[in-house]
Amino acid sequence: MNTQDIIQKKRDGKAMSAEEIGFLVRGISDGRIPDYQIAAWAMAVYFRGMTEQETSDLTLAMAYSGEVMDLSAIAGKKVDKHSTGGVGDKTTLVVIPLAAAMGVPVAKMSGRGLGHTGGTIDKLESIPGFQAERSHAQFVAQVNSIKAAVVSQTGNLVPADKRLYAIRDVTATVDSIPLIASSIMSKKIAAGAEGIVLDVKVGSGAFMKHIDEARQLAREMVQIGKGVGREVVAVISDMSQPLGYAVGNALEVDEALRLLHSGHGPADLEELSVELTARLVMLAGRYSNVETARQQTRKCLAGGAGYDKLTEMVAAQGGRLDEKDPHYGLPQAAFQVPVRADRDGYVGVVDAFQVGRTAMLLGAGRERIGDTIDPAVGVMVHKKKGDWVQEGDVMAVIYANRQQLLPTALKCLADSYRLVNMPPAAQSLIIDTVL
Amino acid sequence: MNTQDIIQKKRDGKAMSAEEIGFLVRGISDGRIPDYQIAAWAMAVYFRGMTEQETSDLTLAMAYSGEVMDLSAIAGKKVDKHSTGGVGDKTTLVVIPLAAAMGVPVAKMSGRGLGHTGGTIDKLESIPGFQAERSHAQFVAQVNSIKAAVVSQTGNLVPADKRLYAIRDVTATVDSIPLIASSIMSKKIAAGAEGIVLDVKVGSGAFMKHIDEARQLAREMVQIGKGVGREVVAVISDMSQPLGYAVGNALEVDEALRLLHSGHGPADLEELSVELTARLVMLAGRYSNVETARQQTRKCLAGGAGYDKLTEMVAAQGGRLDEKDPHYGLPQAAFQVPVRADRDGYVGVVDAFQVGRTAMLLGAGRERIGDTIDPAVGVMVHKKKGDWVQEGDVMAVIYANRQQLLPTALKCLADSYRLVNMPPAAQSLIIDTVL
Repeated sequence: MNTQDIIQKKRDGKAMSAEEIGFLVRGISDGRIPDYQIAAWAMAVYFRGMTEQETSDLTLAMAYSGEVMDLSAIAGKKVDKHSTGGVGDKTTLVVIPLAAAMGVPVAKMSGRGLGHTGGTIDKLESIPGFQAERSHAQFVAQVNSIKAAVVSQTGNLVPADKRLYAIRDVTATVDSIPLIASSIMSKKIAAGAEGIVLDVKVGSGAFMKHIDEARQLAREMVQIGKGVGREVVAVISDMSQPLGYAVGNALEVDEALRLLHSGHGPADLEELSVELTARLVMLAGRYSNVETARQQTRKCLAGGAGYDKLTEMVAAQGGRLDEKDPHYGLPQAAFQVPVRADRDGYVGVVDAFQVGRTAMLLGAGRERIGDTIDPAVGVMVHKKKGDWVQEGDVMAVIYANRQQLLPTALKCLADSYRLVNMPPAAQSLIIDTVL
Repeated sequence: MNTQDIIQKKRDGKAMSAEEIGFLVRGISDGRIPDYQIAAWAMAVYFRGMTEQETSDLTLAMAYSGEVMDLSAIAGKKVDKHSTGGVGDKTTLVVIPLAAAMGVPVAKMSGRGLGHTGGTIDKLESIPGFQAERSHAQFVAQVNSIKAAVVSQTGNLVPADKRLYAIRDVTATVDSIPLIASSIMSKKIAAGAEGIVLDVKVGSGAFMKHIDEARQLAREMVQIGKGVGREVVAVISDMSQPLGYAVGNALEVDEALRLLHSGHGPADLEELSVELTARLVMLAGRYSNVETARQQTRKCLAGGAGYDKLTEMVAAQGGRLDEKDPHYGLPQAAFQVPVRADRDGYVGVVDAFQVGRTAMLLGAGRERIGDTIDPAVGVMVHKKKGDWVQEGDVMAVIYANRQQLLPTALKCLADSYRLVNMPPAAQSLIIDTVL
């Protein structure tokens, strides 16, 4: 077998065999296939796509290209939740404690990643003392004792995806739905998930800008799951404006804690968190009816068990939350500067991409691997789409630590808003569910 | 400017600006753009093509990516001839002396290259003593004194094309017409040609298998020429069977010498050589009417002036031809083994690709840069398409130096022939001319 023949086959629109895909993935992992052949192949896939069978074969080959987590020491079906990423998306911080409080063990490995804010691990690390690095044994023991753990990835998981992604990232071949689907699913499979709830975001603040692409990605991931014996549910949700109000690491932890604590929070965040939790506990076999699962989740949220579970998990991982402090002892930014409405009107748009850029500008995210994150900075969105504002009303507030960033950040945040004269058409948050 | 943005632009079907192409070509030449980005870009070009403007811009940028030959010391318009490569194609060895004998200076740089037989330089080097390595001053002086020189490429010409081609060669991105066109044309421009006659081959023994592709390539090269102020004529000729009878380095030199010596040779070789010479001398401004140019070329061929010119050029470059020897003192192979007809019939096919493979098997060509060529080996094709053969007639003869290669080579050569019961439809040699 020969890499060039495989590239040519794909280039000519033919399907690769499982053997050819296996050869390719081994060559990607062990370095025998050079970067330029991987790049040419990825571009051919960009243009030609892959069949369901090819996508499944690639996913499995990548999942088993390195170490695979052994979660057999954890009793019950192992479920996981994954979001394709959005602005203000702190649902993981709500869903995991809720599911755990409902008796479903969640052993989650998460990344730091790039983007307008950090990943789930970065957010949790804004809690003083929180430790994401755990040995495999500690990780398993914690899940067995308190049902919930969120740790940073250990071991050499999916090395093929790591190398392939690094090449795609600099060769304009990221935007390929089968490659995105197999990248996500291979990591979830290698992390030991048997059931997976996917939150596929669509809109300006998401990777997928159009609903057709989001649907296609959701379908492909559910198909891959079926093809490799995993149960997968994909929820497609709107990401045209930020989710909830908080965008920034400590700000988001604060918002998640507050939601779990009081039982209520921003309507969109609450709705999506309940939906994703309901889907997760259903996959774990808790309920057979989704409406029942939702009701039980709401009941759990209202009762505060999720809050207790999150504080328990944080404490188990060394984190110190101060319940007497209005912000739980989380780091606070030095400056808070509002953006005000320059006229009366309805909020027509709060552009999630722009808000994300603002957070990034302030230092809440990483542009490059290794960049340092400022946990305290970010944006609080006070007014959302459809809200009525009067001239001078605060629409959003910037949380900054470096004064010299303020002018650019304020401009960027103000540009996120568009005021209109008529109430804009409502956009439902949960757009579709793919089973 | 950023390489990734340029790749993405091309990926999305947009045209690159001259500045972007210049940036790309500089990065290819100086190594600042890594292999994987070049590979991804080439695959995007494979799928999206390039506009005329982009192809011209790429050609010029590549032509001037390194040294450019200064032929200003040679009087008159500088013309060159290029073939896209075929089996038994020794027309350069006929066309150059004919044109020179008609008073047109031809300063030709040629390559060694890969393929079933060597390039023009390899063929000439089968003449004992022939030297292809000449200094620039020697080269110019020889053309000024005897009108003809064929030397191997000197200096650092088109470094961008060298690197780009090496990457395309291993990433299934060779088959892109605009990339092929700009690769050929950039080299001709860098070699100082003002007028170029292109022999675009089509058929099993050529790079282009279909007439549509060949026409497209011819058109693009003529367009590039127009775009950059060079006169270009492309002759599209059939390469479904070998050209002439001889396939192999010394065998081809022998056939060219014999044609020039006697004024006659294989009909196809004679026809194409006359046509290409006529086009070349016209480009040099000798005649304004192509029929006159053809007549004058035939007259020159018949008078033997081309033979005198070739022997003069060979002698000027140290080569020793022995006119008393029936094979001009060229190296001879140890074994000559015929392939005979196994029944009566018409020759329906002499597959050029298969005959080329046979020559390659015997050692007449190079699979990899640096492989050694055996000048004496090859194939003489005795029967061509449309010929009537009786069982036992010799159809072709293998010229070999290594006995152990004979069984495979004989099988390969026999497989080149298909005998049929009815005379096959005639195929004209010169299919089209693109001006």
